[in-house]
Amino acid sequence: MKAEILTIGDEVLRGEIVDSNKALLAQRLLSLDIECHYQSSIRDDRQDMEEAFSRAVERSDVLLVSGGLGPTRDDITTEVMSETFGRPLFLDEGSLEAIRAFFQNVGREMSDTNRKQAFFPEGADILTNPVGTAPGFALEQSGCLIFCLPGVPRELSLMMDEQVLPRLGAVLGGTRVRARILRTFGIGESSLENELSDLARQGGAEIAFRTTFPDNLLRIIARGRSTDEADAQITELAGVVRERLGDLVYAEEDESMAATVVRLFSEQSARIAVAESCTGGLIAQNLTSVPGASGCFVGGVVAYANSAKESLLGVPESMLAEFGAVSEPVARTMAESVRQRFGADVGVATTGISGPDGGTADKPVGLVHLAMSWGPGPASTSAGLHSDHFVFPLDRLRHRVLTAQVALDWMRRWALGLELVGPSLLRKLGGSSAPPFPGAPKA
Amino acid sequence: MKAEILTIGDEVLRGEIVDSNKALLAQRLLSLDIECHYQSSIRDDRQDMEEAFSRAVERSDVLLVSGGLGPTRDDITTEVMSETFGRPLFLDEGSLEAIRAFFQNVGREMSDTNRKQAFFPEGADILTNPVGTAPGFALEQSGCLIFCLPGVPRELSLMMDEQVLPRLGAVLGGTRVRARILRTFGIGESSLENELSDLARQGGAEIAFRTTFPDNLLRIIARGRSTDEADAQITELAGVVRERLGDLVYAEEDESMAATVVRLFSEQSARIAVAESCTGGLIAQNLTSVPGASGCFVGGVVAYANSAKESLLGVPESMLAEFGAVSEPVARTMAESVRQRFGADVGVATTGISGPDGGTADKPVGLVHLAMSWGPGPASTSAGLHSDHFVFPLDRLRHRVLTAQVALDWMRRWALGLELVGPSLLRKLGGSSAPPFPGAPKA
Repeated sequence: MKAEILTIGDEVLRGEIVDSNKALLAQRLLSLDIECHYQSSIRDDRQDMEEAFSRAVERSDVLLVSGGLGPTRDDITTEVMSETFGRPLFLDEGSLEAIRAFFQNVGREMSDTNRKQAFFPEGADILTNPVGTAPGFALEQSGCLIFCLPGVPRELSLMMDEQVLPRLGAVLGGTRVRARILRTFGIGESSLENELSDLARQGGAEIAFRTTFPDNLLRIIARGRSTDEADAQITELAGVVRERLGDLVYAEEDESMAATVVRLFSEQSARIAVAESCTGGLIAQNLTSVPGASGCFVGGVVAYANSAKESLLGVPESMLAEFGAVSEPVARTMAESVRQRFGADVGVATTGISGPDGGTADKPVGLVHLAMSWGPGPASTSAGLHSDHFVFPLDRLRHRVLTAQVALDWMRRWALGLELVGPSLLRKLGGSSAPPFPGAPKA
Repeated sequence: MKAEILTIGDEVLRGEIVDSNKALLAQRLLSLDIECHYQSSIRDDRQDMEEAFSRAVERSDVLLVSGGLGPTRDDITTEVMSETFGRPLFLDEGSLEAIRAFFQNVGREMSDTNRKQAFFPEGADILTNPVGTAPGFALEQSGCLIFCLPGVPRELSLMMDEQVLPRLGAVLGGTRVRARILRTFGIGESSLENELSDLARQGGAEIAFRTTFPDNLLRIIARGRSTDEADAQITELAGVVRERLGDLVYAEEDESMAATVVRLFSEQSARIAVAESCTGGLIAQNLTSVPGASGCFVGGVVAYANSAKESLLGVPESMLAEFGAVSEPVARTMAESVRQRFGADVGVATTGISGPDGGTADKPVGLVHLAMSWGPGPASTSAGLHSDHFVFPLDRLRHRVLTAQVALDWMRRWALGLELVGPSLLRKLGGSSAPPFPGAPKA
């Protein structure tokens, strides 16, 4: 089955917005094993639209159109569909009522121009829009299934899932495609591919790789005669992958590292505090962006200037003078001190040189020291203090992002009773070898 | 002049990546006043490519093709161009040499497959690629100017600017288009449009509006016979706009609010400290993401739990019990205390309910108290303390982003000696009326 996607709107053609609707629709089509052969964008222009509609119907089995269903004069998708295929417009009373109700609901008055949105080409099957005013419609024309959807991403996404995919699924009868994402941190993309090369295809399931810095994601895709059959294949392959990668897989689907940490710590009623220098609040910000972070995150100190390290975290002036702010003793003192001052179970500290300036021969741009201190709290049997340092040859932004992720990964590892090693990716990027593990979090 | 953009690659069609190349190319074309009428993406498929090339040459004056110039078997753009238009391939020795040199430079060996990248269709004008191995080429076919460029965004962008635009400019002779962005915060998009409706078009210059939450951007575009002429028109219109909007314009081009604050405070050698509850480190993170933030940012406390407000910022337990953590007295104490403990000139505090849970009848989700304290430092004549509260009916993420931006805007206003009012947008969203200004920063 050959699909085609067409988005309509001057703002796309002028490059004012990056059109992500096409990628969204193409991905969803793949879940039914339907491949998209053509993606196009055209202006709100009658002739261009007629040509595009006619060509699509000739060469494709499925046509998804997004945009041009609004109430303004520029919105002419319905009208041009009607003209192109000689299907007169009819008023759908149900849709008119729904549009009226929508406006009542948000306390605004329905304007006359919105009436236009209740008209459809003859033979159209109406696709309701539960979150906006513009209904869509489906049409079969010369053997091509046409679906016209609004351009607003939220409405488009919902209607694609609830209206289009079930209809296409019913037509196809056959194959179902499902996918699951495994999130890994600490292993490079090529190592990951090597590690799993013999598993790339297993029966009906396969693995695809994607990097979203600093994580590498695995997407396991499986086909089956039913979603259950496809899911079963995914579960089997995911099990093998997890067995092989061990603790490098930190979560599934869209659970971030921070969300994983918040979940694990909240479950154990363990409390976190952070002392950040080079990450400048990023670790705190990652944790607090997770709803429910207050279940485990007590707070943090952003000790950017040396004076702040002294006054807020009690780092001795003599230590700063002797070792410098970016040093192991300072990181360890920061971690220990922030844990105690906030009354937390775990304290984590970062101090480094994110650049672009500030490096020296001894301490290059990219150097970072991390430390983690923990008390004999609910989640660990004995207190401990661990530190390590790395050199990440990255720009300022990515240096901070990667450092924050290592800190969060240490928290995760502590909560799971795993060793606090920096992962292999970090080793490759120039980190030290792991020092003997100085304590034993949670037996 | 009618332009068309064609990107080639299976990964786009599968929706694995959102193709931003098309928007980039369309924007650059507009700088020469060339409008893009069609954007399409097709797979690495010989027949689809032939059809797309032929149709483009028929209907468009300019065709930009991105992708398919690499060394792999899938990369067939050059080959298909050659076949479609009956132009045999020739080997360009200069390009071969450049590819060889590129590999030498990065210390890798050139593979045989890379040789293919030195072949071009007869009549092609070669476009050198200073940052990658794939050269591009230009071709005139049946009155259509074709430019084939690599798909890697960095290479594409550079070659578009250095190779394609000058060639198109030479053909066009005439008009040059220039643009400048004015960044505003604190005024809604519709208010902004109303405020400037009479200026929307002034001679050769016009204003376009774009929202990137929480800012609203104005883009002033002007046409002229030279870039100098266009720039002069922009400068004139920008002056009128700035006069009218006053301090709502906080910066130009891509200078963020945090970067503006870092610049202003560093110039005055004034020092900032922040006490964050609901923003959870976001203000610190915004400031420290600016290179050179250490010139003014001392540090901050993320006082998420009440215990942290007490122990790190000295908020009395009785005050928390009487007024609650989200209250004016607590915000004021946090601001005052963080300024003193960090030895800063200015202390800013946030405490609020970002949601999704935690609201009450008295204190709904979305409520936030902000406070700012300043000493009689280098930049102000007398000490002072200001506070205000708002209700932002937004989701958690945007609540935090908007609150952080208000805090940063207060810093900017303080450094410029402006009143610390919440801007009109915020009033509309349910903020209180401005209390009498309690102090006079910088005469």
